[in-house]
Amino acid sequence: MPHFHATVRVGLRPSVLDPAGEAVCAAARRLGHGAIQSIRIGKAIEIRLEAPDAATARQQLESLSAQLLANPVMETWSLELHSQEV
Amino acid sequence: MPHFHATVRVGLRPSVLDPAGEAVCAAARRLGHGAIQSIRIGKAIEIRLEAPDAATARQQLESLSAQLLANPVMETWSLELHSQEV
Repeated sequence: MPHFHATVRVGLRPSVLDPAGEAVCAAARRLGHGAIQSIRIGKAIEIRLEAPDAATARQQLESLSAQLLANPVMETWSLELHSQEV
Repeated sequence: MPHFHATVRVGLRPSVLDPAGEAVCAAARRLGHGAIQSIRIGKAIEIRLEAPDAATARQQLESLSAQLLANPVMETWSLELHSQEV
């Protein structure tokens, strides 16, 4: 069965505060990077899976993202299905 | 001064174990996603900054990534400089 590689990006909704990102932004400014305006920290989840075709892989990954990887109250997610590996 | 938007992807080196990713992988299988082979969790850090041009922005971001965002012993990073915003 073909193998697929995908990245699911999970990030906080714009209305949700990101204290960790703000702390990193403050640290960057203290280190002399005064040009940095904002930093927000999200997740990039790398997934390898088997599926008969790309459409099935995408369907599996969408279900997984909505069900397990992202908290829909606070986060949004997007899916990049990279390539079919032999 | 022009504004830039960039994403720094920080991930564990392949030789470093990712227990959180393995736990999510096991949870995915329990939820019926048996086709998932591996999951590794990295960070996607969204940065907005001011810089006179794209080359300066890239230089700032590379310095910040190497200095603050990634731990070079355990992690690798890559930079995507998206666009200049007006």
